[in-house]
Amino acid sequence: MPSIEVCLSPALFDVEKINKKTVVVIDVLRATTTICNAIANGASCVIPVISQAECEEYEQYKNHLLAAERKGEKVKGFKFGNSPFDYPEEVIKGKTLVLTTTNGTKAIRIVEDAKNLLIGSFINISALCNRISELNQDAILLCSGWKDEPCLEDSLFAGACIDKLETFALANDSAILAYNAYQVYKKDMFQAFTKCGHYSRLKTLVSEKELRFCASSDQVTVVPEYKNGKIKA
Amino acid sequence: MPSIEVCLSPALFDVEKINKKTVVVIDVLRATTTICNAIANGASCVIPVISQAECEEYEQYKNHLLAAERKGEKVKGFKFGNSPFDYPEEVIKGKTLVLTTTNGTKAIRIVEDAKNLLIGSFINISALCNRISELNQDAILLCSGWKDEPCLEDSLFAGACIDKLETFALANDSAILAYNAYQVYKKDMFQAFTKCGHYSRLKTLVSEKELRFCASSDQVTVVPEYKNGKIKA
Repeated sequence: MPSIEVCLSPALFDVEKINKKTVVVIDVLRATTTICNAIANGASCVIPVISQAECEEYEQYKNHLLAAERKGEKVKGFKFGNSPFDYPEEVIKGKTLVLTTTNGTKAIRIVEDAKNLLIGSFINISALCNRISELNQDAILLCSGWKDEPCLEDSLFAGACIDKLETFALANDSAILAYNAYQVYKKDMFQAFTKCGHYSRLKTLVSEKELRFCASSDQVTVVPEYKNGKIKA
Repeated sequence: MPSIEVCLSPALFDVEKINKKTVVVIDVLRATTTICNAIANGASCVIPVISQAECEEYEQYKNHLLAAERKGEKVKGFKFGNSPFDYPEEVIKGKTLVLTTTNGTKAIRIVEDAKNLLIGSFINISALCNRISELNQDAILLCSGWKDEPCLEDSLFAGACIDKLETFALANDSAILAYNAYQVYKKDMFQAFTKCGHYSRLKTLVSEKELRFCASSDQVTVVPEYKNGKIKA
């Protein structure tokens, strides 16, 4: 029986653990939701980068959209930000999205040596959990958090995955914490989001419609996967 | 209204936050339970030290008991360990306990500059929460965890404190996670302990009676407080 563990913050991640494991990066508000939506809408790939400067290096390439977010806001000078709604099919189809965000893209790069690195969000949860089951390896759910602080919304998503992955054994106490939180809030995920510290940051910057989208399960069926610097379906 | 936040691991603690705050160090299995019990049974003070070598430096002093624990076990060569039952009144009264443990004593030293640094465990929970209320400052509940990994038992205790501190506002998402976990398990804390990773480590080393003691509320009325290197009532 494979096991599943949760890491509540990139600051707690032990990179020595990723050998032969499936790692899922979670930043439901909003980087991983945005990546799932961009891929579902036909992006040829997403390139997660750490810095704005690294993002700008792609300016010379055709068909590359440059996107940067810091503290929940689109960075001045960039045309695109970290909203899943920035990437409808007519904008993103066949394009490469080069994305840097406060937490999520950094978390992806921390675990880029994982055997299988998947991108998870409520909008692709069932497809994601099917893929984790299919891989049938020990899995680590890495919550991106907010500047290394654990976040409720990412923990809730980790708990929701555990709920679906019934045949996986819980491998650490953080998995129990995440699962408990999900049990408390599962009836209304958007309502749960309103309790999150990051919600109070975002609610003045982002429409309720967008936050409800981030909280809604199974809007897409893609499972974005990172390999050699690129995230593809 | 003062606020209360939870830090799930010493690795996530931001020392710049402690200014003018009450900090509570939590390691219910078992360092902070042991400290509370030793003080309740008449220890003149407890000196928390990081290393075994630092502990041994006190060998030259009269009335000092040297205690060391690593990985749940008493360290070879030391007469005392990290069990609350090692310190009945007839052993500890009027003595100084010099203690080094895997997680708890290290966590205490990380936050030693806090304005008010209190030692918390289920066995002194009501007295502790009364003291936190009386101080009426923002509070941080620091879970010692296990080698920087968040632990369920410490999180449950943080959640139990939040449950008692009704007038304090929750200041971060980790506080919500801890409170949720407590709500799920509050009916039987020993039963909850059996779910903890650290329980599986300890159950072969420690009696069930001792683990039940660590899970039982209000066995003592002391609130040990750290100041200038020493923990006193």
